[in-house]
Amino acid sequence: MNPIQLFDAESSTYTYILAAANGEAAIIDPVDRHCERDLAHLRRLGLRLAYALETHAHADHVTSSGRLRELTGARACAPSGCGIAPAEVQLEDGDVVRFGGEEVRVLHTPGHTAGSVSFLWRTNLFTGDTLLIDGCGRTDFQGGSAGDLYDSVRDKLFALPDETRVWPGHDYRGQSVSTIGWEKRNNARLAGRSRDDFIALMAALDLPQPKMIDVALPANRRLGLVHTV
Amino acid sequence: MNPIQLFDAESSTYTYILAAANGEAAIIDPVDRHCERDLAHLRRLGLRLAYALETHAHADHVTSSGRLRELTGARACAPSGCGIAPAEVQLEDGDVVRFGGEEVRVLHTPGHTAGSVSFLWRTNLFTGDTLLIDGCGRTDFQGGSAGDLYDSVRDKLFALPDETRVWPGHDYRGQSVSTIGWEKRNNARLAGRSRDDFIALMAALDLPQPKMIDVALPANRRLGLVHTV
Ligand SMILES: [Fe+2]
Ligand SMILES: [Fe+2]
Repeated sequence: MNPIQLFDAESSTYTYILAAANGEAAIIDPVDRHCERDLAHLRRLGLRLAYALETHAHADHVTSSGRLRELTGARACAPSGCGIAPAEVQLEDGDVVRFGGEEVRVLHTPGHTAGSVSFLWRTNLFTGDTLLIDGCGRTDFQGGSAGDLYDSVRDKLFALPDETRVWPGHDYRGQSVSTIGWEKRNNARLAGRSRDDFIALMAALDLPQPKMIDVALPANRRLGLVHTV
Repeated sequence: MNPIQLFDAESSTYTYILAAANGEAAIIDPVDRHCERDLAHLRRLGLRLAYALETHAHADHVTSSGRLRELTGARACAPSGCGIAPAEVQLEDGDVVRFGGEEVRVLHTPGHTAGSVSFLWRTNLFTGDTLLIDGCGRTDFQGGSAGDLYDSVRDKLFALPDETRVWPGHDYRGQSVSTIGWEKRNNARLAGRSRDDFIALMAALDLPQPKMIDVALPANRRLGLVHTV
């Protein structure tokens, strides 16, 4: 039971559609410029959007969750720790989002940002920018913390069964999906590394400020709706 | 039960990985330059490649089926009417490819090329270049025929249940998946059009020769293996 995986080539962002047997659906991390594409998929597949879910307040692209809510009647869900006030569902660790007999479990996985969450649907894990394929998100802004990310991954994500499929929020090398077992044993940043080593590694990255952060972050805190204050 | 869908941005080609519960897998229309990417997916997901399947002899990219066979021991399957001699399994209409309890049914759907097939796996249809999302493949070379394509789509593909998911061989507009029901009612080239109208429409397209055909076609008839005569 894989999700439908959609890609934004500009920001290398993955969006996911999860479909229930009764035609209800959820979308994870939709991107503003692909709103029409995503609606076309829902239409062609005969799906009714029940929920739009955010893994965190993104710094590199703008969400379409607000717009999708306006156009479909879906409910917008965002992690409570991300300052996304217009989302009517403020997600807490352990919450379960239900649609059409499906369950999406919320795991609070701080580190990339303080509020970041991952979503578990059946045997599929949507990691946002917490755990990437053979990598992980940066931890140097929005309350990010390398120590927190290390703990989130070790205690919550690597605790899941090895065969759990990992669907990341981004990939910059053309990869689409991984597994917890593979990442636990092979992830270049996290596998077999101590917490202190990982913190030192992340501190040494010295990355430039994301180009879009000054625009994207305030926009995403309004669910991408420019006219909402 | 969706496939894993992978994309080649250069030729806008989709490759699909189908996974069985026991870890056996099949790949449809793999692309030469993504051989490593595709192997990485198999590795990360713990899959053993049983079959590499071709929908037809492509004119716009080179397959990696031969190379994947060498590296994984998979068996190469190609439509009998495509002149792909090194494929040990020559597929005929109605054949069923079996791996790990899964069944892939072969539908001979001539029109884009004389030998083109589609594959049906559970409720997923892999249409190669026969039926595209809101379009269809061209019919002006390799024994292509607009009349044949029309008959293939009407008699074999549109005869499938409306909810059958359509996974195309290409998409040039960022779309990933459709359904038989939607294409039957909305496909810009095929929905509600008579056979004669469709033939006239395809004849009027007047498309340029595919840039890569002189390289790709002979290479694909050798499963992408340059050293195989
Ligand atoms: Fe992010
Ligand atoms: Fe083709």
